[in-house]
Amino acid sequence: MEAIRYSALSGGKRIRPFLVTYSSTLFGVSRSYAMRVAAAVEMVHCYSLIHDDLPAMDDDDLRRGVPTCHVKFDEATAILAGDALLARSFEVLADPATHSDPRVRSDLVVELARAAGGDGMVGGQMLDLLAAESSLQMAEITRMQRMKTGALIAFSCESAALLGKASDSARHALRAYAHDLGLAFQIADDLLDVEGDPDVVGKRTQKDENAGKATFISLLGTDRARSQSQMLAHQAVQHLDMFPDTADPLRALAEYVVNRNN
Amino acid sequence: MEAIRYSALSGGKRIRPFLVTYSSTLFGVSRSYAMRVAAAVEMVHCYSLIHDDLPAMDDDDLRRGVPTCHVKFDEATAILAGDALLARSFEVLADPATHSDPRVRSDLVVELARAAGGDGMVGGQMLDLLAAESSLQMAEITRMQRMKTGALIAFSCESAALLGKASDSARHALRAYAHDLGLAFQIADDLLDVEGDPDVVGKRTQKDENAGKATFISLLGTDRARSQSQMLAHQAVQHLDMFPDTADPLRALAEYVVNRNN
Repeated sequence: MEAIRYSALSGGKRIRPFLVTYSSTLFGVSRSYAMRVAAAVEMVHCYSLIHDDLPAMDDDDLRRGVPTCHVKFDEATAILAGDALLARSFEVLADPATHSDPRVRSDLVVELARAAGGDGMVGGQMLDLLAAESSLQMAEITRMQRMKTGALIAFSCESAALLGKASDSARHALRAYAHDLGLAFQIADDLLDVEGDPDVVGKRTQKDENAGKATFISLLGTDRARSQSQMLAHQAVQHLDMFPDTADPLRALAEYVVNRNN
Repeated sequence: MEAIRYSALSGGKRIRPFLVTYSSTLFGVSRSYAMRVAAAVEMVHCYSLIHDDLPAMDDDDLRRGVPTCHVKFDEATAILAGDALLARSFEVLADPATHSDPRVRSDLVVELARAAGGDGMVGGQMLDLLAAESSLQMAEITRMQRMKTGALIAFSCESAALLGKASDSARHALRAYAHDLGLAFQIADDLLDVEGDPDVVGKRTQKDENAGKATFISLLGTDRARSQSQMLAHQAVQHLDMFPDTADPLRALAEYVVNRNN
């Protein structure tokens, strides 16, 4: 429990919970429902960080400016803390307190499991690990990132559509927003790895280059990568045109993710 | 996917799927429903074996007579294969094909998440890892085993009661059966660790003694441990008295788990 709290409550930008809660306001979803889904999403995000940081994976010792879970505790505890967070996220989603309609709860579980599993985050991380040994091209890197980080960002938005029983068109618009936002976010992340100050970013930088990994930056160069991320953020905002002012926090987020320094 | 298949389809006794399917026959549950839950339970069992076998945990290199997942592949792949199996199990449970009533599917997800999580398998494994550094007494070992292996065995039986919307009394009887069966199973497992032939058991033996771990055997001795497991198996069968001949496979299983040699 100590390791779980340490990793799940160590701050971070909380972008995914932000997406769940502000997407939920578009559809008048009860705040208590949205907060539970937001918590579940953040648990899955934190589980993936704990496991990805392990020595056998990315071998990172710093995360959010503090020692990673396996450094602070030990590897066994870190593996189990991640496992427990993943299991708990599904318990939270399926609990009657998350929505009065059990069909919505079941649908949330299916969608989150897909985002987390072999065709989502786990598959993306596997491709990322294999990337060090191969030379990926743009289409492959885009696919890998779409699975590794895009799937949970997409779930964060689509869960709100499920909670609010939104129209198909609203759901598709949110999915398109999430897709472009996720890629913009990832390119900005790659730029921070190249240009960021580790003290501000809160984790080790220059990792990709040292690992000889193909990234958006190695393929596009920093200038084109930066303009690509700005273009994607702009495009993400356009997908929100059907929504009123209540979508302004989502619009502002797109601006933020490409201009952040951590 | 290769690592997932390797670990999930490598045989094993399939006791938990047996429990799901034969408990389901007590309540006339559709075979296709029961098989999906049985698959989900086996996925969770296999995920836990993959993670428990990791070098940072029990550091086992042999399982079911073949190399463990991280030996056959590598540690990163093994961690991710386990993660993917855990996520997939919830996807399978929550899928509409698992039960027509979404409330049943949600309840299954909540119960499996509890069995797998910090108060269940993950918590039990954590206590087991800590046990090497302390001297547990009977009550503590019983609690640890109840979490580590008992929780999923109990879910295997109770899921059938959920699928079949069984009466509370039937559900409680099955839970009591599962509780005693789980402990009998674990004591038999400890006996195999002490007395078994690694070639027959399919995994390394003498592990507990070498690790200096307190077990049912170190506390009771082999003779009393054996009679205790027989007594528990007998008691498990008595809990099934309210069920007709359709419960005979469950009765036979109690006999089997304490007399098996692998």
